[in-house]
Amino acid sequence: MQYPEPIAKLIDGFMKLPGIGPKTASRLAFFVLDMKEDHVLDFAKALVNAKRNLTYCSVCHNITDMDPCRICEDTHRDKSVVCVLQDAKDVIAMEKMKEYRGQYHVLHGAISPMDGIGPEDIKIPELLKRLQDDTIQEVIIATNPTIEGEATAMYMSRLIKPTGIKVTRIAHGLPVGGDLEYADEVTLSRAIEGRREI
Amino acid sequence: MQYPEPIAKLIDGFMKLPGIGPKTASRLAFFVLDMKEDHVLDFAKALVNAKRNLTYCSVCHNITDMDPCRICEDTHRDKSVVCVLQDAKDVIAMEKMKEYRGQYHVLHGAISPMDGIGPEDIKIPELLKRLQDDTIQEVIIATNPTIEGEATAMYMSRLIKPTGIKVTRIAHGLPVGGDLEYADEVTLSRAIEGRREI
Repeated sequence: MQYPEPIAKLIDGFMKLPGIGPKTASRLAFFVLDMKEDHVLDFAKALVNAKRNLTYCSVCHNITDMDPCRICEDTHRDKSVVCVLQDAKDVIAMEKMKEYRGQYHVLHGAISPMDGIGPEDIKIPELLKRLQDDTIQEVIIATNPTIEGEATAMYMSRLIKPTGIKVTRIAHGLPVGGDLEYADEVTLSRAIEGRREI
Repeated sequence: MQYPEPIAKLIDGFMKLPGIGPKTASRLAFFVLDMKEDHVLDFAKALVNAKRNLTYCSVCHNITDMDPCRICEDTHRDKSVVCVLQDAKDVIAMEKMKEYRGQYHVLHGAISPMDGIGPEDIKIPELLKRLQDDTIQEVIIATNPTIEGEATAMYMSRLIKPTGIKVTRIAHGLPVGGDLEYADEVTLSRAIEGRREI
């Protein structure tokens, strides 16, 4: 005997999500059976709505329910600075900080020759196009501190620098609250390299 | 800035599921955005269908899409043995074994005075009613080997034994492939207690 078809289908649905194996999927499916019908309907609607109503901003390529997105439309934000990020989720992390008031540009990935991802496969050409009018004066590259992220940062800085626009990279070093003892060599070397007079 | 509303709602939906925190929820939500629309629709339908079309079998209280369920209806199965389980998922575990050909009875919980769960709150009265006709000759109690599961087993065996029906408990001992070195004292003591001549 297998599970009755409706629950088998639901388990299959959950298993398609990342990081969810058969055990977790069946636990979630059984949880859904015990949920109130209204809540299940709401969840199902949220799934479909998110898929249908969200698109990518034509300016910054961040995820949005209106185009251009709220950040690009916001007249109170500094139009002269653009922060380049790998992922739409990174925008949320930046906004949580509540200190950055510039624009964003979401690359949706990083250059990775091993995976066959070149500069044209991520939103680098779109960034260069944005830089053509003279509003943007600084590009802050905040790609991840990984090999791919660093390569992407280097590539972009080489392309943009000749245009005279200032290119900066976010600092790498010890995370606040971290412990020197547990820091890896590369981070520590970057922390020393990036030291500042106090 | 927060997430656009459609995705915020979807993240909320995922966060209502057990074991899914804000980070996992947003990872899943972003994954859904990249899924094909058809797959998202299928998943949403599966959620609603599972909730709407599944019920509990009126005989064995297992989860089912028809009443009585396929196992209770199956004329090839042994009607004289009933295996008592705590949970609908346990039925699947038993069926995977492919050796048991009797009936089931799902309690949907175990007696737990600490949580205010008494015999009447789980399907014990329904089991006693099932035992009133003379078809069932053996009750195999397969509740979990926890304090609650054991208490439930003891309680049921005391109620059922006077009626003359055979009551058995599944064996406790070392799991196959396990290592004696890592077995806890209680399991080991049960393994010794339940030793058999070879």
